[in-house]
Amino acid sequence: MKVLPMTDLDHLRVVLVATRNPLNIGAAARAMSNFGVRRLRVVNPYDAAFREARSAVGASGLLAKAEQYENVAEAVADCKLVVGTTAATRRELQHRLLRLDEGARTIKRQLKAGPVALLFGSERYGLSNQEMSHCHWMMRIPTREEHGSMNLGQAVAVCLYELVRGKQTTPAKTRLALGKKEKASATSREMERLTQLLFKVLRASGYINPRAAAAEEKLRRLVRRMKLNANDAEVLLGMMRQVAWKLGASEKDSE
Amino acid sequence: MKVLPMTDLDHLRVVLVATRNPLNIGAAARAMSNFGVRRLRVVNPYDAAFREARSAVGASGLLAKAEQYENVAEAVADCKLVVGTTAATRRELQHRLLRLDEGARTIKRQLKAGPVALLFGSERYGLSNQEMSHCHWMMRIPTREEHGSMNLGQAVAVCLYELVRGKQTTPAKTRLALGKKEKASATSREMERLTQLLFKVLRASGYINPRAAAAEEKLRRLVRRMKLNANDAEVLLGMMRQVAWKLGASEKDSE
Repeated sequence: MKVLPMTDLDHLRVVLVATRNPLNIGAAARAMSNFGVRRLRVVNPYDAAFREARSAVGASGLLAKAEQYENVAEAVADCKLVVGTTAATRRELQHRLLRLDEGARTIKRQLKAGPVALLFGSERYGLSNQEMSHCHWMMRIPTREEHGSMNLGQAVAVCLYELVRGKQTTPAKTRLALGKKEKASATSREMERLTQLLFKVLRASGYINPRAAAAEEKLRRLVRRMKLNANDAEVLLGMMRQVAWKLGASEKDSE
Repeated sequence: MKVLPMTDLDHLRVVLVATRNPLNIGAAARAMSNFGVRRLRVVNPYDAAFREARSAVGASGLLAKAEQYENVAEAVADCKLVVGTTAATRRELQHRLLRLDEGARTIKRQLKAGPVALLFGSERYGLSNQEMSHCHWMMRIPTREEHGSMNLGQAVAVCLYELVRGKQTTPAKTRLALGKKEKASATSREMERLTQLLFKVLRASGYINPRAAAAEEKLRRLVRRMKLNANDAEVLLGMMRQVAWKLGASEKDSE
């Protein structure tokens, strides 16, 4: 039973960040296989854990094809929507926080248009603020406040279930119209280049104190909130390149 | 934060039948705690597995209070509705088979009236025909036909998630605060100031040729498309003011 057309789910990348336990990597891969999601990416896993998960008996082909990245920026570079998962309720989040069923609706729409990354943080700490700053928004499984933190493999299963849950309801005609109307939004790679370039410009201008903490994350979130389309992002990049050059801060240093 | 009123979920009994792996008993207990379900029953588990799960570090009180039964009949004796879970699609089922989201609706209704048992079979074989015969109907998580069988802990998590799904769980205060901050979009005045300032910066940097037609209008439309909120617009204005100053183009000239 295909619950979403494979073309849609093929746009989903499950990104495990700094996972420690090989059993959890394996469990995530199994849930992906159960629900028809094939693209697994791991960022900076404990090396032994990743090797062990890959060599485990019964490890799926999906695990063998998992792509390894050194940081979140690279792992989400081709994605137009990046969504983080969290158990947080009280923590001060800088991000918009959507309930899983609300967020999944937006993700499903975006999956028709292009790649979407779904991030899961480490077992102990979840996603760091730096890692979260790559996300457009955060999504939360409605667990109890008193015991919010889920097992990683179970969290992946629940999120993917929500994405395949129910029936395909959008008629083909509507989808076509939507695709045309929606301008291609900028990829994370473009957003990140813009962030880095702006950062460079702001440092060169003296706006940012080099010792100021979290300036880069704040800037990254600001750029994400602009919701740029691909064309505008390209134009802004060109502008900032020129400004950087004029300020004597070349783009090379910033990339 | 209660996801369902406790009186409703307190009527749910999660029944694990002939579970072999202590990790799976522990994972089921954790998911139950995450979603606010407290009554765990185990039927004829491998004794060592049950002992090990109970003594595991961090095992919840829920696990300590788990009730052990020798057969399904006794484990479900007080329940008015008994639902089995299965990965089967082709197997000849004697039972009515509902999709998880359909079945959950009925279960939620019944939970208001009295105890409901939700049965999970052994990792290897699922529920036997004899065990299934105690069920009113069966429920199926919509996994792929090619790889239907889920990990037990993940299956429990997904089923319980469906039962608490869609309820308001984000604390009201957080949502209110977020909503307020987000809705205050930048005024046209702020957008125009940003446009003018950017224009100045781009001219000073040599990006815009003073004789180029329509550059200002293009820039204005670009800034409008960013859909900035008031706060972000203010921050960007501050940034561009500094960059303009560094480039020797003061804001005064631009307004």
